[in-house]
Amino acid sequence: MRNFEYHNQTKLIFGKGGEQKAGTEMARCAKRVLLHHSGGHPARSGLIDTIKKSLEDAGVEWVELTGVQPNPRLSLVYKGIELAKKEKVEALLAVGGGSAIDSAKAIALGAVDGGDVWDFYDGSRVPAGALPVAAVVTIPAAGSESSVSSVITNEKGPWKKGANYECTRPVFSILNPEFTYTLPPYQTACGVADMLAHVMERYFTTEQDHQLTDQLCEGTMRTIIHNARAVFEGGRQNYNACAELMLSGAIAHNNLLSMGRIGDWASHGIEHELSARYDIAHGAGLAIVFPAWIAYNIKEEVANGVQPVRFARFAAEVWGVDGACYDCAQAALEGVFRMRSFFQSIGLPLTFVDAKLPADHIEEIASQVTRNGLIGNYTKLDKCAVEYILNSVKQS
Amino acid sequence: MRNFEYHNQTKLIFGKGGEQKAGTEMARCAKRVLLHHSGGHPARSGLIDTIKKSLEDAGVEWVELTGVQPNPRLSLVYKGIELAKKEKVEALLAVGGGSAIDSAKAIALGAVDGGDVWDFYDGSRVPAGALPVAAVVTIPAAGSESSVSSVITNEKGPWKKGANYECTRPVFSILNPEFTYTLPPYQTACGVADMLAHVMERYFTTEQDHQLTDQLCEGTMRTIIHNARAVFEGGRQNYNACAELMLSGAIAHNNLLSMGRIGDWASHGIEHELSARYDIAHGAGLAIVFPAWIAYNIKEEVANGVQPVRFARFAAEVWGVDGACYDCAQAALEGVFRMRSFFQSIGLPLTFVDAKLPADHIEEIASQVTRNGLIGNYTKLDKCAVEYILNSVKQS
Repeated sequence: MRNFEYHNQTKLIFGKGGEQKAGTEMARCAKRVLLHHSGGHPARSGLIDTIKKSLEDAGVEWVELTGVQPNPRLSLVYKGIELAKKEKVEALLAVGGGSAIDSAKAIALGAVDGGDVWDFYDGSRVPAGALPVAAVVTIPAAGSESSVSSVITNEKGPWKKGANYECTRPVFSILNPEFTYTLPPYQTACGVADMLAHVMERYFTTEQDHQLTDQLCEGTMRTIIHNARAVFEGGRQNYNACAELMLSGAIAHNNLLSMGRIGDWASHGIEHELSARYDIAHGAGLAIVFPAWIAYNIKEEVANGVQPVRFARFAAEVWGVDGACYDCAQAALEGVFRMRSFFQSIGLPLTFVDAKLPADHIEEIASQVTRNGLIGNYTKLDKCAVEYILNSVKQS
Repeated sequence: MRNFEYHNQTKLIFGKGGEQKAGTEMARCAKRVLLHHSGGHPARSGLIDTIKKSLEDAGVEWVELTGVQPNPRLSLVYKGIELAKKEKVEALLAVGGGSAIDSAKAIALGAVDGGDVWDFYDGSRVPAGALPVAAVVTIPAAGSESSVSSVITNEKGPWKKGANYECTRPVFSILNPEFTYTLPPYQTACGVADMLAHVMERYFTTEQDHQLTDQLCEGTMRTIIHNARAVFEGGRQNYNACAELMLSGAIAHNNLLSMGRIGDWASHGIEHELSARYDIAHGAGLAIVFPAWIAYNIKEEVANGVQPVRFARFAAEVWGVDGACYDCAQAALEGVFRMRSFFQSIGLPLTFVDAKLPADHIEEIASQVTRNGLIGNYTKLDKCAVEYILNSVKQS
């Protein structure tokens, strides 16, 4: 087990009616906040009104910035920074999913800085701090609600870049599973793929000794799969299944599951390029890329005379593949098959064709993904490997 | 799933050499600390000297109070409070296991208070705050290193009382598994029973819907059992096994495994009475009480025509009992048998006789445990039930 530090200070407020606490929690760190959301469903459902009332009751003033969209845009972040400075807000309150929270994190960084916030995403500068960020989560998946991560799309590129700064970890996040009842099924499915991917990126590691975190990862993945099935098989208002998904999404990405190990993150790197270029939902992109990444690794290990034991274990523990019925490589591949079937069963694309993406820029995408060198940790991928992975999922 | 809040702010610094960071971490919140430990092994091993040097290098002054013993005593806490006030320390740094940390937490409460610190343990007053507490952990098990709990023994009674105050949650805890290489095996075994018990108290709940936390609990328990076996079968200096145990001990009691559920805690209540009266190690007392508590519940459920499904699941998922070979009650009892065999194999007592405890005050103990009414949540135990449980483990 590697040396590590784990320090997650986000307060999770989980369950029915949690949104009523937004005001009192916010009042602990700010008297004036920027309320940030899409302007769509959270507003129509009445949630924004409830939050505004809660803020007012707690004596917290608010200004509002709507317009957040999936793959949140740098242009809106700039607008938010200007507004935050002009209105002298002391904190950000995001309402929505990962896009709203990530956008709020970027605004929080820029609001206390005199330069270009994009510097913190392209790595040319490190931030000195940020305004406090808090969240009311309406979409299970992102994990951004208790993580240090945010991902912003710069339309000029298009470039999609992630940043990890401790100062952007939310001070509190309110998670009420009831908010997720009315999500479009496709959005729920994308969330499921995203949270599974957050665990898998941590699970596929070359560290040899990490029994506790393996067990925690496998338990979390089984919970996600089981409850996604429950929700998609008619349980859209199944409180407990929605609650398990929402909680799993938060746990999947708060680094508890990384303790003592280094994750991979190549699939995320590849997907970010797809969603920056084609504006596909992040989870949908991951449903295409991640199984292909696993299949590539199994092929490579077999070709090199190595038993793909990590992927066979994944197949057994997460997808219920009975090791007695298969040899190691077959079991590993059966795991990939079941994972793809699962994604398909909840309406996710498995190929470029399924997602209606053009497949004629794969070489260019692979070049872009590897522009700074090899990516990933479980295996280091070069441009050829990324190209192979993407070509393997051009069509069924 | 129940509504819950989860907020654990302890920074875990895990791995080899972590003790070198004691000074820089401490300097973030204090310039003068009370260093609190037994004066035994941590001093002899050179760890205390390393920590003192680290404090000095970081410009942190220290005063020292030794003498902590298992089942930490109120008299030493009083001494610590007097010293902390006289020396105007700004924080406590405990070095050791649960006893040192719990003692430091009590001193931290008393050091900012004008009255009797015991009030905070017998529940007659609630503290307004506490000095910051930090820990360098040398004994895996307690979980006190990232929990709000502390348990103090008042020799006058003897009464052993626990208190849970957020202000006593350590600001950081340093866990270096190498510190545990030289622990006496009996102490390691007691630690294993204690951490398993912390998970079991949370696992045995009447809440029906808690899949993620069930999975996390089961994975943690399997990890504890597997790695305890590895350590006891000749791996005293097996870094990874020691690391898994140490990390499991911290996770077992930091409330991650309680999310969305209410635990039981009757076994802890009964054991506290045993260790207050006989000064038996807490883990040893739990090895006697907990299997008996489970067996009592199985008996009661069967008598009431209820299948003991929770205990059968525990047997299957944690102890590997194959459900196909047994009916539900048999499977549940086989789990208890395997648990007892495991405790015995690592040198723990299973009965009063094994632990050389007199068995002639059981009625009195049961009265004392239930003096404020029924205890536990999975089932509510009255005096008769507690008496039955203790009588069932008088002798093999």
